[in-house]
Formats: sequence, C-alpha cells, structure tokens
Amino acid sequence: MSRVSFEQFQVQRAEFINQEENRALGSDVVLNEDEQKVNSHIMKLKKAELDVGFKTPRDFTPARHFFQALDKIKASPLFQLIQKMPKGAILHAHDTAIGSMETIVKATHKDHLWQNGDFDRPDPPKFQFSKSKPNPLNGSEWRSVAAIRREIGNEGYNNNIRNLFSLYHADPVNAYQCINQIWGTFSNIFISLEPIVTYKPVWEEYFYQSLEELYADNVSYLEFRGVLPPVYDLENHTYGPEEIVQIYYDLSEKFKKTHPDFIGVKFIYAPHRLGDDDAFKGYMDIAESLHKKFPAFVAGFDLVGQEDLGRPHVDFNERLLKMSPAIQFFFHAGETNWNYGTDENLIDAILLGTKRIGHGFAAIKHPRVLEEIKKRNICIELNPISNQVLKLVDDFRNHPGSYYFSDNYPVVISSDDPAFWCASPLSHDFYIAFLGLASARQDLRLLKKLALNSIEYSAMSKAEKVEAKHKWNIAWNNFIDQTIKSIAE
Amino acid sequence: MSRVSFEQFQVQRAEFINQEENRALGSDVVLNEDEQKVNSHIMKLKKAELDVGFKTPRDFTPARHFFQALDKIKASPLFQLIQKMPKGAILHAHDTAIGSMETIVKATHKDHLWQNGDFDRPDPPKFQFSKSKPNPLNGSEWRSVAAIRREIGNEGYNNNIRNLFSLYHADPVNAYQCINQIWGTFSNIFISLEPIVTYKPVWEEYFYQSLEELYADNVSYLEFRGVLPPVYDLENHTYGPEEIVQIYYDLSEKFKKTHPDFIGVKFIYAPHRLGDDDAFKGYMDIAESLHKKFPAFVAGFDLVGQEDLGRPHVDFNERLLKMSPAIQFFFHAGETNWNYGTDENLIDAILLGTKRIGHGFAAIKHPRVLEEIKKRNICIELNPISNQVLKLVDDFRNHPGSYYFSDNYPVVISSDDPAFWCASPLSHDFYIAFLGLASARQDLRLLKKLALNSIEYSAMSKAEKVEAKHKWNIAWNNFIDQTIKSIAE
Repeated sequence: MSRVSFEQFQVQRAEFINQEENRALGSDVVLNEDEQKVNSHIMKLKKAELDVGFKTPRDFTPARHFFQALDKIKASPLFQLIQKMPKGAILHAHDTAIGSMETIVKATHKDHLWQNGDFDRPDPPKFQFSKSKPNPLNGSEWRSVAAIRREIGNEGYNNNIRNLFSLYHADPVNAYQCINQIWGTFSNIFISLEPIVTYKPVWEEYFYQSLEELYADNVSYLEFRGVLPPVYDLENHTYGPEEIVQIYYDLSEKFKKTHPDFIGVKFIYAPHRLGDDDAFKGYMDIAESLHKKFPAFVAGFDLVGQEDLGRPHVDFNERLLKMSPAIQFFFHAGETNWNYGTDENLIDAILLGTKRIGHGFAAIKHPRVLEEIKKRNICIELNPISNQVLKLVDDFRNHPGSYYFSDNYPVVISSDDPAFWCASPLSHDFYIAFLGLASARQDLRLLKKLALNSIEYSAMSKAEKVEAKHKWNIAWNNFIDQTIKSIAE
Repeated sequence: MSRVSFEQFQVQRAEFINQEENRALGSDVVLNEDEQKVNSHIMKLKKAELDVGFKTPRDFTPARHFFQALDKIKASPLFQLIQKMPKGAILHAHDTAIGSMETIVKATHKDHLWQNGDFDRPDPPKFQFSKSKPNPLNGSEWRSVAAIRREIGNEGYNNNIRNLFSLYHADPVNAYQCINQIWGTFSNIFISLEPIVTYKPVWEEYFYQSLEELYADNVSYLEFRGVLPPVYDLENHTYGPEEIVQIYYDLSEKFKKTHPDFIGVKFIYAPHRLGDDDAFKGYMDIAESLHKKFPAFVAGFDLVGQEDLGRPHVDFNERLLKMSPAIQFFFHAGETNWNYGTDENLIDAILLGTKRIGHGFAAIKHPRVLEEIKKRNICIELNPISNQVLKLVDDFRNHPGSYYFSDNYPVVISSDDPAFWCASPLSHDFYIAFLGLASARQDLRLLKKLALNSIEYSAMSKAEKVEAKHKWNIAWNNFIDQTIKSIAE
C-alpha cells in the first residue's frame, strides 16, 4: 500500500472539481465575451456577500429569516443587478398573492367597500363591496370603510391593511411556532382577501397591476394557478369560471398589446385539495370545460392547499386518471418536511404523468422519485422564500434546491405568493437561490440557465417557445449591454 | 395520448414504493420471527410519536431544538427501548466530551483543586490541581475549590460547574445566534475543562467512567478521537502522548476484563487543525510513533476543530501524503453548511484515501463526492444532535442523513460530544435518527443495520470483527428476548 505523489494528487483534485462543476446546473451554458465581463462583475458582488457571511454568519442574508433580511437585501448591489436581469417566467404563483400590498391598499380606497369587525380582534375583519350596507353579520353591523378611514386616518388604515394581508413579522421565528400555525394564518389571508379582490373592478385592476409589477421586475411570462372564486359586481351579478378566465385572457391580450416585449400568460386551474368528493366532481367538470374553451390559455390542472392537512393524492388518483388525457397536470407535491405519507404525493404526481412538480421539497428523500424526475424530465418549481416563510427550512443553505442545483436537476425558480411576504415578483427568490442555494462557484451561467429553463419547461407550444426565446434574448442582450456600460461608468 | 387505467396505476404505485423501500438503508436485513414481534412493537411506538407530531408539529421532538426536547425524549417509550438496544459502536466521539457532567462534578470534589476567577464573569474561571497554591494569574489570586464550595454551597457550586461545561441553554435559539459564536463557546469548554481532566487521577477516572457510561447505554465498542493534551500530576510530572495512550490502552484492557461482553476500544489521534506548520510537523511525528508503538490500538489520524475557521485541508495535503501509508485516515470533512471552500475538505479527504468521513454534512451538495462515497465504501459518521446544537440545521427532518438513509449510503450514527449537550453516549442520537432522519417506513431493520455498520466500518481487524459480531449478536438476541417478555407482561 502506498500513497499517491502530491503531483498526482493535485491532478486528481483538479479533475475531481472539474467533474463536479460540469455536473452543476448551468454548466452547459457558454458565455460570450460580453457575458463573461458581466459574469466577472456579478461574481465579484457574490463573493463580497459570501466573504462577509463567512466571517459573520449572522450577516449572511440566506442564513437569516427573510423578514429579517429584507432591508439588507434591498441594499445589496447583487440583488439590484438581479432585479434588472430578464429572468424569463414565473411558473409557480397563485392568483391573489402576486400583486403587491399597495394594489390591495389601493383597492380599499374604492367606493362601496364595507367592513365588519375591527382590525385588533383575533378574528380578522370581513369585507364586502355593496351599493348599500349589507345585512348585519351575527348581529354585528357593517361600517363603510370610508367612515373608518376618516376615523383612524388614512395611514393608520392602510397599515392595518398591510398587516392583515401579509405574513410579515419583525420576530417571525417566535411569532410562528409551527408549520400548521403559519398555514392557518396564511390560508386566512386568502379567505379574508377574497371579497376585496373578487369585486370585478378590483379583480381586473389587481390582475393587470400584477402583470405590470412582473414586467417591472423583468419577468416576461407568467403561468399562474387560480382557484377561480366567484367574481361579483354591485349589480349582484356573479361571474363563473369561464367568465373569469375570459377576463384573465382579455387582460393578458391587452397587456401584451401595450407591452410588445412581454411574452404572455397561461392559467393553471388549481382548486383546493380540501374539497369533498362532490366539490371535486365539480372541479373536474370545470377543468374539462375550461380546457375546451381555452385550449391554449388554460395550461392544465393542479390542486392547492397545505399538503399535510389536505387530502392526499390517493383520494383523487382514480378520478384524475379519467380526465381528458389532453389536460396536463402541474401538481403540487412534496411541499412538506414529513417523510410520513404526505410526501407520497410525489409518487402519485409522477405516475399521473405530471408535467412539473410544485415545490418538490421532499423529493430529496426519495431516490426513485429523483431518478424519475431526471428520466421523465419533470421540472421542479422551487420556491425558496415560500418554503422558509412557511416553515419548511430555516437556513436557505439547507434547502434541497442546493442538491438539485449541484446535480443538474430540471428546475426553475419561482415565488409562489410573493406579495404575502413582501417580496418582489421574482427577484428576491432569484437572489436567494443564487447566493444561498447555489455553490459559490455557480455563476451567471446558472442565472441564464434558470431563465432559459423557465421558458423551456413552460406549457407554451413549440412555436410559442421560439417566439418567447427570441423576445427574451433581445432583453438579455440589452441587459448585458446595459450592465457593461454601468460597470464602465 | 391516453392515461393508464386505475388498476395499472395501482400496480405501478405499489411497485414504485417497493423499489424505494428496497433502496433504503437496512432493507437488506432479514428479521426472524422474534425480531418481527419486536419490530411490530417498536413501529407502534414510532407511529405514536409521528402521529402526535403530524397533528401538532411543535410537539414532534425531532422538529424542536434538542435542549427543548430533552424532557420529552426522556419520557418517550421509544427512546427507552432504544436505550436498551445493543447499538454496537461509537465511531465518532471526542475524548473529553464523552463522560457525563457528573463525572466532571465528581472530579471537582478532589483535593488540591484551585480556581482562578468567578463563575459569573464573561471570562470563564481557570482551574488547576496543585499541592500548593499556584502563583497569581495576571495579578489575580487562586482560591481552593474546597473553600469556594464552603462559601457558595455544594449544590450551587456543582450547578456552576454543570453550566460552565455544557452548551445547554433553555432558550438555545436566541442564546446562540450563529455558528461561529457557539463554536467559540464550545471550544472554550474544551480549553477550560482541560486542566481538570488532564490531572492524572481525573484523567484515568474520567476515561474509565466514560466506558462505564457507554456500557450502561448498551454501546460495546468505542473508537474515539483525542488531541492528547499533556497529563500532569501533583509531583510536576507531565505525561506525553505515548504515556497517555498507554493509560488509555491499560484502562481499556482492564475494562474488558471486568466486562467480558464489552468489545473494546481504539484511539484515533486527532490534533487541532488550527496548528501552525511547526505544530503540524510535531503532530505527524507523534502519529508515526504512536502507530509504531500501538499498531492495533491506535487506529489512525484525523484533525479536529471548526472547519470553517480552521485551516483547510489544502494546507496539509502535501505533508499528509508523506505519512506512512499504513496510517489510516479518519478525516472530519464537510461539517459545514457553506458551499464555499470549507466543503472542499470532502474532496481532499476522499482523495487522501480516508477510511471514514466525520460528519459529511455537506456531502449532499457534491454529487461526485456522493458517488465516490458509494464506490469506495467510505463510511459517513453522522452526528445529528451535534449538527443541530452546533447550528448546522434546525429541524432534524432537514438533516442530510435522511437522504443518506433513503439511498443506502454507508453510514453510522454517532454522538461527537454528547456530554456537552447533556445527551446519553449514543441513545439520543439513535432515537433522533430513527424518528427524525429515517422515513416513517424504516423499522427495526434500520436500527439493526446501524449497529452492524458500526462494527463493519470500524478499524477492527477481520478477526476482531468476527469476535465483535459474536458478542454483539448475543447481546442483540438477549435484547430481543427481553423485549418480547416485556411486551407480553
């Protein structure tokens, strides 16, 4: 037995590191000369933050709770650069959690909004748009929001709204003690918010404004999930699923016209997994009719809600298999840190032929699932900030995305419900992924790959993808040019 | 395009789950009839804790900080059964952090112990055994511990000792804000403790008592790391590395004689990675001479200390390659959640031909490392509680061990420095691994495999392993019999 010489060792070591780098996500991307310049710059910014963190780990933003890192991230030159970068698509986000809190605040300025209950009670207040005062609720009178605004002042009222519809807390670790508790609060936000956003004028403005905010964040395509709650107006007219999707479609088309470099929008119908069998039958009927009416705009079907406490996939498999084969699945699966039942949804999703997997946080504990994800090229939609806020992981460096990145799994970075945690539509998640999930060596090639993946794994047709890549390429080259100019300044 | 029938789906699903189970660690173990009975019992206990946790995640011990779960674990019937189980070996633990706090408390009752400084100062007090009062330290007088005991009372004094030499804190999450901070405290414990334990009578009692505690925790073999600090006595005699190892050896032989079912002890010389080049040269000389003098008792060489802040492996590779090829390596590597430099120690450890890897926490982010670990059959020594206390991971369900378990990596469960976090020698780590790292489906076969692995991946010779397995088998069968009796009662 003998040891190798140091020279041999050094050769082996370099080769080993090289082999590792070649397996990482983005390693197949070749950067041109200009991109290499931008890469040097971005890696300098990344290294600066890594060096600070290595010395003082509590100053490393991905090692902190997102709420405690928000101000620091805002001031980060790396984050600011990522904001400007054309990031491609958001493939995983929920209808009423994309538009910023200010869009909601604005909505509460509209006439005819009524409120039942105060802000400082354990039960959140209820809201309703109505021409006249609605009937008392359990004996409690409604008051017009305008009157309450006059009473407590605009700024005070707006802050109450911001608190009510966000999970933000200055001391999140102690405020939310377990996953079920924060999911309770989280689900309540959706429920409280519904009567505000489903008022037709707000519904339209909110969606259009969401697209504006995506666009401003340099995101140019959206595939979003929605439960399609009934939309209403002051004339007591209620709009059903097909009418709501028509609104989405029309507004998307309008947005594309006014923003020619925007790629587009598709919708994934994703009702709640808590529904009983009758409700589920209704969902399937809606899915079928939407698929027929909007074959290109409606991308497919999914189920939403906390997987741990919701119904497991085995409850639905038999019926899901009977859906029209042309309807594609985009299942949430493995959004859990249990290795006890819930995570079997991953197996169901794969065997049902899901095109993508929402979250896939638990996939790392399932070697056969990992194998199939690669074999079938199923994209994992990672939402790192969502996973931290909703208490799956504390330190982003322990997020399984870091494993998926290291071995070239098909993944995209998305944002889930960015408005509820005061994040930008996509930039914050990209920043966390680049700094906290990726290795120190992963560079601009990873970011470019993530953007390209978001087009590649979208539900767009081949022809749509060609056009999408064309638009994205123009934006990307422009970003590279602008960045080089700004470095030179 | 069409979907499969539900019948086909069910067949595929069962097969998929079967394939996953067959890949998991321990799936190759075949249980006899008696073991199956014990398995049913243990799985009932496991399921009960999982069910409580699934309903109320904050009551799930592996989702909590270990310090906050200690009382709950003590009362757990699953834990109590695991305590009784013959767990094989501890392959990763450090000399002066194995014996319980009470052994230290007892040592401070010995005559001739002096103390410099009070307990309530930011700087911990210093200790020294000496016939006469030592000279003042920076102008500060020494006092005899006996006198201080009389002053503040025995119970008060003992509690001060317990606090001083443990990382325990009722509010650990807020008390220790980052990894560098807790490593500072952790390293200081070793330093403060040294003059107490290196007093020869204490040194001998402490080591022998550690073996007693292992034995009581149903651990029957130990491979432990030591830095070999100078041992001293009241006659100003200082004992060097070879003499200290001789003490270890003699006491181990004595222990084996009085405990014939105990398998034995080996020692891994593991000096500090912070040492400068001259110090390192000295370490290598010691390693060579120990290897010659104790070829069977001294298993090999390692380096200890915080990897992030210590010198990286690249500083030592060239010299390590020059060590006698017969000296085996057992390197700490990847005890970090950085993907930035430190984790490259993993690559060095592997290419240097390490027999086992201490911790390997970061290996999960290195696909080539993972590949080589399997190919070269390098055992990962997992220390889950250590990793949580020392702030690599919060929720045990996110520990990479859960990935290693799921895909049959060569691993053992060990305990690192159990005394410093008030854990039993091995049972607490086994319990956490079984409940928090393993899947809900993994059963007694996993526990048996972990025990068998601890013999298989030890540094014992083939002949020694045969004897070890024989002794362990007798203990195991006895455990199975006793458990069946206790279930029937």
